[in-house]
Amino acid sequence: MAKIYDLEQINSVLDDIDLVSYIEEGFAAYSRGEVVVPPVGEMIFDDPRGEAHIKYGFIKGDDYFVIKVASGMYDNYKIGLPTNSGLMLLFSQKTGMLLSVLLDEGHLTGARTAAAGAVVAKHMAPQHVERIGIIGAGDQGRRQLRMLESIVDCRSVTVWGVSQEEVEVYQAEMAPLGYDVNTTLEPAEVAAACNLIVTVTPANEPLLQRADIRAGTHITAVGSDTAEKQELDPQILADADIVVSDSLAQAASRGEIYQAVSAGVFASDAVVELGKVIVDEGSGRQSDEQITVADLTGVAVQDIQISKAVFAALDGS
Amino acid sequence: MAKIYDLEQINSVLDDIDLVSYIEEGFAAYSRGEVVVPPVGEMIFDDPRGEAHIKYGFIKGDDYFVIKVASGMYDNYKIGLPTNSGLMLLFSQKTGMLLSVLLDEGHLTGARTAAAGAVVAKHMAPQHVERIGIIGAGDQGRRQLRMLESIVDCRSVTVWGVSQEEVEVYQAEMAPLGYDVNTTLEPAEVAAACNLIVTVTPANEPLLQRADIRAGTHITAVGSDTAEKQELDPQILADADIVVSDSLAQAASRGEIYQAVSAGVFASDAVVELGKVIVDEGSGRQSDEQITVADLTGVAVQDIQISKAVFAALDGS
Repeated sequence: MAKIYDLEQINSVLDDIDLVSYIEEGFAAYSRGEVVVPPVGEMIFDDPRGEAHIKYGFIKGDDYFVIKVASGMYDNYKIGLPTNSGLMLLFSQKTGMLLSVLLDEGHLTGARTAAAGAVVAKHMAPQHVERIGIIGAGDQGRRQLRMLESIVDCRSVTVWGVSQEEVEVYQAEMAPLGYDVNTTLEPAEVAAACNLIVTVTPANEPLLQRADIRAGTHITAVGSDTAEKQELDPQILADADIVVSDSLAQAASRGEIYQAVSAGVFASDAVVELGKVIVDEGSGRQSDEQITVADLTGVAVQDIQISKAVFAALDGS
Repeated sequence: MAKIYDLEQINSVLDDIDLVSYIEEGFAAYSRGEVVVPPVGEMIFDDPRGEAHIKYGFIKGDDYFVIKVASGMYDNYKIGLPTNSGLMLLFSQKTGMLLSVLLDEGHLTGARTAAAGAVVAKHMAPQHVERIGIIGAGDQGRRQLRMLESIVDCRSVTVWGVSQEEVEVYQAEMAPLGYDVNTTLEPAEVAAACNLIVTVTPANEPLLQRADIRAGTHITAVGSDTAEKQELDPQILADADIVVSDSLAQAASRGEIYQAVSAGVFASDAVVELGKVIVDEGSGRQSDEQITVADLTGVAVQDIQISKAVFAALDGS
């Protein structure tokens, strides 16, 4: 009989899991070609407007396969419900049996996305991080900073958001974690002050311009995961010393790399896959003067890994 | 919070549901173009050998969308487990929220497949059914006969199976339902005695030949749902007065119609979709001399309808 866990149970173990290691291992397996990730399933609804996506896959020879369902209904706020919902299903790759239903309501997607940011920082951040920049003061902006806590010593942060109210709430929430947060409504001020920047907005136009970026900066672009969204001036990628993607296959059709290639200023053969940087430090940052960019579009292997991790923690507890 | 139901709970309401009406309604909606059924998601496993399929879709404007996962691991019998497993997920199309997890272990697929056979019989069987023929004495062969009980008055049956033991077990199990079952190991004997035949085997070679089929016979071909499987001599379709498919789209790549078209003896433009026969009796059987064939490959709208029916029964009970 499959084990069913709700969000409260999932949250009760999430903080004690070494997510960064699980996600790191997942990206390494992905770049070694050991992960099968079929095309995403999609349903589009007209009335009310919304969508549902099915992401699924498995690591060859692993004990599990995972199916994730994520829904987003744009008018849910009108009836007091969250826009996004979802769950993850963990099956045995040995018997085909359903092992667990993780009723995470979409939170594990937030967690695994933040963990990918931490994996990138571990391998690509400058040796001395002067100040962390967060572009986007919402839920994922909080998660990214929390997840960086164990990876980067720096506790100075500049956050950008869409309103003074938003950034002040962010500032107040991050203070108890030991973060000293400056706020701004100008993205360029983040770039001027910070050499490790994480962008987590749903923007469709660049928020960071090439001229804003200091030598030695690393940028992790998390927000753009479609063909439309864009947070970075394509020239940033063009001039970067190293550009990394979580998935070369996905970068061909979505994210910052897709935008820069489409703009004609950047060639995709210059991109290194994240899993390669993880297993071969020589393909990562070589000096504190380099500008580096990691473009994350989200890969199903992250869902596989976080499901396994959460199930192991809950099933053993 | 989503409601979770296990197989025992599902079985406790299944017999009281008017499945035939639900499935009939689903096929009618499908043929009216009201159902969205994206391509099936698929994972293939090598060690141990197996597969998982994800079927999903929704009726436009309906309250629900449904995702079904079905797995099949070919070596499970070695460890005493059933080959097939699965579950159905029912979501709100209005809010995107997960409403119910139906842990049916694949049984609802068996039930909705049998109900489709009954829908076909309701609309295509000869007025006077002399004897029902069942080709294939396994689980689906039992389900088909049970589901015909409310549709067809006839209680005389001839069953074909792969061994004398198999057909005798079938005979004994169906007797308490009021069925007088003759057994045979020769498919032609079924065709000689019966004018309503249901084929439910995983055969890759025809079991019924054109010469065996009497005038006035209706055949529902349930077994073949891939490009490889085949139960009927293509000439049966070529000579049939009416050939019906549950899905014209799927008939282009799988099932008996695909086989007959590939053999060059049959043109697919002669095929009528089941939903059309349901709403327009004029497109169905016109006399008791006609030979008619329905080729069922299984459509996600059946999963949608049975999930809704079971959830309504359980949630209200």
